[in-house]
Amino acid sequence: MMEKKGSAKTFGGEIVQYKITSEQLKSDTTFRVFIPGSGKYPVLYFLSGLTCTDENFATKAGALKKASELGIALVMPDTSPRGDGVPNEEGWDFGHGAGFYIDATREPYSTHYRMYSYITQELPGLLSKELSDKLDLSRQSIFGHSMGGHGALTLFLKNPGLYKSASAFSPICHPSDPRCQWGQKAFTGYLGSDSSTWKQHDATELIKTYEGPKVEILIDQGSADNFLPQNQLQPEEFEKAAKECGYPVKVRMQEGYDHSYYFISTFVEDHLEHHAKYLK
Amino acid sequence: MMEKKGSAKTFGGEIVQYKITSEQLKSDTTFRVFIPGSGKYPVLYFLSGLTCTDENFATKAGALKKASELGIALVMPDTSPRGDGVPNEEGWDFGHGAGFYIDATREPYSTHYRMYSYITQELPGLLSKELSDKLDLSRQSIFGHSMGGHGALTLFLKNPGLYKSASAFSPICHPSDPRCQWGQKAFTGYLGSDSSTWKQHDATELIKTYEGPKVEILIDQGSADNFLPQNQLQPEEFEKAAKECGYPVKVRMQEGYDHSYYFISTFVEDHLEHHAKYLK
Repeated sequence: MMEKKGSAKTFGGEIVQYKITSEQLKSDTTFRVFIPGSGKYPVLYFLSGLTCTDENFATKAGALKKASELGIALVMPDTSPRGDGVPNEEGWDFGHGAGFYIDATREPYSTHYRMYSYITQELPGLLSKELSDKLDLSRQSIFGHSMGGHGALTLFLKNPGLYKSASAFSPICHPSDPRCQWGQKAFTGYLGSDSSTWKQHDATELIKTYEGPKVEILIDQGSADNFLPQNQLQPEEFEKAAKECGYPVKVRMQEGYDHSYYFISTFVEDHLEHHAKYLK
Repeated sequence: MMEKKGSAKTFGGEIVQYKITSEQLKSDTTFRVFIPGSGKYPVLYFLSGLTCTDENFATKAGALKKASELGIALVMPDTSPRGDGVPNEEGWDFGHGAGFYIDATREPYSTHYRMYSYITQELPGLLSKELSDKLDLSRQSIFGHSMGGHGALTLFLKNPGLYKSASAFSPICHPSDPRCQWGQKAFTGYLGSDSSTWKQHDATELIKTYEGPKVEILIDQGSADNFLPQNQLQPEEFEKAAKECGYPVKVRMQEGYDHSYYFISTFVEDHLEHHAKYLK
């Protein structure tokens, strides 16, 4: 059951916030859907970064105009399970707002933190049932930002053919690498300290063994992004691994741009056009 | 002295948040400026609505792309003086975040609540001094939303020639009318109960006696705006007054749109193009 929490007309279409009780997350969760008009549209998921909710991309990315023009529906989920019963920790890079789009295997997180199964299975199943007249779930693509860029790349690479295309803004490309503090913390917490299990959630590792359609992946990265010299992102490692296995990846280093939505909004139309090539 | 609090590259230009100690407001205040590139640009002020700060339009309106293309600088001030020393009241429609772009005459508000003089005099003076290489203050226009739409229309009509053009999204057109609860509360609080003094801050009254260049005013209003049936906005009164005195006003009733930034973003490029006709 999808409960409509709010909606607004925008760019000739409609943006709706839904609330559901998720079986995977064992909690209530919200997501937003932008539907361009009265037709039936392919679906592009946007996965947000640390601390975000389903709201940030909807209000700050400036993506709805081009999505409307191209006839692409956008689905924007939350970044983790939330609520009183969902375990959390101090800080902004683990727990609520920081689900990392994986299924946790370690207690006490494994009950609720199942963002991977929620995004790849439960949510599309729900959408195809409840919005079957508006969304064509046989045509899906995925993109995201930072932690959500990691989500987009890994979900794409782990499920050949599920998504037509993938792209990312400043993605966390190599979270299992010891220099990536975000990845160390999240994977230790959600998966445990045996780092051999981490590689199946790391885009730079996954691409090495990927066997599926090699659809070009587009990545934009700001050169003035503070997290770049901290080695949280490591696009160079992903690019190198892709090159070695002959996977076409276009990493665009955008001079002077940072990690913010001011950066995302500048290049989001390029990403929508990239996905339109494969969705339409 | 303008202190740079933060900045980001966006759409080839730069958005900067500045902090100043305002002489008019007797308090610190922030504003944001978007500068499209390395040239010298005309200035378009955006006045925000109730509860907003200098952030909302910058992050949610999706205006920066078109401003960059047209070569128009945007200046986005806060909606009131703020800070511990600035008197405030319970609620969101008076006091902090609700300055109504007037100079208060009633204690205890008259010391700080001087948004009219701040926007029309102090801020442009400061910009022409500190950003003289980037902004051409001889070419200024103004627009706004809701309370800020009221601000844009009244500042334009009270200062013939100061602004080349004016436009508004869902403006409070007739705040001195007894049916407009926002106006009643604000004007009583800031100006006192003698309602004869209120008319000089009411666009529907001001247009009747306006003598200056009759540059077309563009107004967009959503038909599904909750505040419309509450008579907070009354665009029909402004349109009627304009018609009676032969002032060209285009009020576009946008079917199904509400009062939110989803509405603003849908039509903001039309407004930028409207102003570009007079600024360029």
